[in-house]
Amino acid sequence: MENPKEIGLEKLEQTFSLPDVVSLCEEEDSLVILDQTQLPAREVFQKINKEEELIDAIVRLKVRGAPAIGVAAAAGLYVCFARTLANMTSAQLMQTEFQALANRIRASRPTAVNLSWALDRMTVLFKQWIAGKDKISMSDFQEIKHLLRAEAVRIKEEDIEMCKQIALHGVGLISSGSRILTHCNAGHLAVSRYGTALAPIYLAQACGLNPKVYADETRPLLQGARLTAYELMKFGVNTTLVCDNMAASLMSQGMIDLIMVGCDRIAANGDVANKIGTCGVAVLAHHYHVPFYVLGPTSTFDPHTPTGKDIVIEQRAASEVTDLHYIHRMAPEHVQVYNPAFDVTPAELVTAYITEKGVFRQIEDFH
Amino acid sequence: MENPKEIGLEKLEQTFSLPDVVSLCEEEDSLVILDQTQLPAREVFQKINKEEELIDAIVRLKVRGAPAIGVAAAAGLYVCFARTLANMTSAQLMQTEFQALANRIRASRPTAVNLSWALDRMTVLFKQWIAGKDKISMSDFQEIKHLLRAEAVRIKEEDIEMCKQIALHGVGLISSGSRILTHCNAGHLAVSRYGTALAPIYLAQACGLNPKVYADETRPLLQGARLTAYELMKFGVNTTLVCDNMAASLMSQGMIDLIMVGCDRIAANGDVANKIGTCGVAVLAHHYHVPFYVLGPTSTFDPHTPTGKDIVIEQRAASEVTDLHYIHRMAPEHVQVYNPAFDVTPAELVTAYITEKGVFRQIEDFH
Repeated sequence: MENPKEIGLEKLEQTFSLPDVVSLCEEEDSLVILDQTQLPAREVFQKINKEEELIDAIVRLKVRGAPAIGVAAAAGLYVCFARTLANMTSAQLMQTEFQALANRIRASRPTAVNLSWALDRMTVLFKQWIAGKDKISMSDFQEIKHLLRAEAVRIKEEDIEMCKQIALHGVGLISSGSRILTHCNAGHLAVSRYGTALAPIYLAQACGLNPKVYADETRPLLQGARLTAYELMKFGVNTTLVCDNMAASLMSQGMIDLIMVGCDRIAANGDVANKIGTCGVAVLAHHYHVPFYVLGPTSTFDPHTPTGKDIVIEQRAASEVTDLHYIHRMAPEHVQVYNPAFDVTPAELVTAYITEKGVFRQIEDFH
Repeated sequence: MENPKEIGLEKLEQTFSLPDVVSLCEEEDSLVILDQTQLPAREVFQKINKEEELIDAIVRLKVRGAPAIGVAAAAGLYVCFARTLANMTSAQLMQTEFQALANRIRASRPTAVNLSWALDRMTVLFKQWIAGKDKISMSDFQEIKHLLRAEAVRIKEEDIEMCKQIALHGVGLISSGSRILTHCNAGHLAVSRYGTALAPIYLAQACGLNPKVYADETRPLLQGARLTAYELMKFGVNTTLVCDNMAASLMSQGMIDLIMVGCDRIAANGDVANKIGTCGVAVLAHHYHVPFYVLGPTSTFDPHTPTGKDIVIEQRAASEVTDLHYIHRMAPEHVQVYNPAFDVTPAELVTAYITEKGVFRQIEDFH
């Protein structure tokens, strides 16, 4: 007999109607993304064919969320490289151009490890193919295009499978009517499908557990208010929006049973870089004895970064804090602003890490 | 020889150029308030003569901050009552009307104890005056107007003196270049002059200590971004704005030396009700071993409220969270919102209480 979770997953797959946020156009070699800066007001899809468009989309968070950035970077590298192939007269030139393009894409956001990880996968494949080649023919163009496209598609398919596995492992932590706090958006909009931190919540909903989710609005860019509340409500999940500074009020009154957040990078010692504010939620959870779960693919784990202190934290524009959503100024002119995009949650504040491979109480179990 | 702090206070008094936010018009019986909902974009002063205007100003936070609400309520009670005196034919009617008016003003914000405290002072004076009276003459009108106005002015003058005393007691906690985090606005704009939590900072600035202040923006109404950053910068204080969720990032990196916040009500056991988010800052301060100081007048101390659990927390409109400053919607339609205006910080997280009477490490020293 089938596992009830597996049945739930089947039901989730059948009923999940939110469109993919990153996809490759079937008929032409374009990347298509849902422009998340326009949510929840408008659902606008944008075609991306050029490097500038791709980098702009990543920098301006039109596509955001570590796994989605990885998928978009791989597909975008393929699309942009394919457009320039006709100019490449030698293997040498081709290799130089590919590397340069990958490096420029890689520099667009420093903190998310999945960006580098996805570009590295594409690069390994490219290097294997080009090794020993000298002159380049038309059929070579077709072959490498086919190989790169297939790899980009594979990265996305693996990402979807990863989310399904996280959903299966994480749903065991959710009971009927569990009250769950989440921060930022580690949902469907941050990955290829279903999400990381939100995937078990969707599965719980599909299984009839009726979780109640509190979404931190997540200043300054309001991913919680604009994106998490939007996608959860679209799937019918009972969702309540709170300002970031209300999490302590909820926990102090026993209104939160568990916390599920995503992650951008996990250091070798288990320290977690995630959206600014995550560390504060973890400290509160520790103080109020609420389990704090970090959910993400194992590709987020970075053995080359010893601790959280070694993670480069991106500092972003002051206008994100002073001007609301680029429209209405809400702070005095010339005020200094501190606007880190991420913070680091020390490993001792993490109850468990949930990946596609299982639930790990200790970072050592990862290795 | 004079105390250097006292010399600094003299310098502060001489150089402080920000206009009072609550005042009584000299030539006519009007209350004048600075409409804080329009800051920092516009400095608009509004005359208040009618009860509806007064209650609207308090409910909509045109005047806000516990002490300023008290001063405005006392002055407003005087102004509104004075306008209706001509209709009052008996002491009985006058007493009924006075009480009813005071009660309606009292109901405009439930959490701030200063509102009740100031109205009670006016009421005690009124009751003493009217005791034993029956018929009311024109000269009685003049007399009670004079008495009520004088009491309202006295409440404001005492408030200014209280702030100066808090400044003197609090400045001893600040060293040269101290990095101070504050939440919401407990500054000049929240009182009659100088502030509570910000008063020692202004004094430190006047003394040449060059404090560096981090102002939490304080969602949902952004009093930190709009008001605290505005008034500190106007006095030349080195000010940096952060989103509420960045406080943990600052503290985890050792970038904060102390925290100074105001308070709306202190329960008998020392639990502190203050702007939503204060409790979270206190938990973080405890975790990172940063001193957490609560500053306010002794009138904020409420011996009739045993603990924080007994403090009524005002729940405010969802639109404050979903629509930015009433202009641009930023969350999905129909999302549920949890929007408490205050939270409660347990006494054990408070390093010391600073009032006009001194620095108290234990709430018991208050009694």
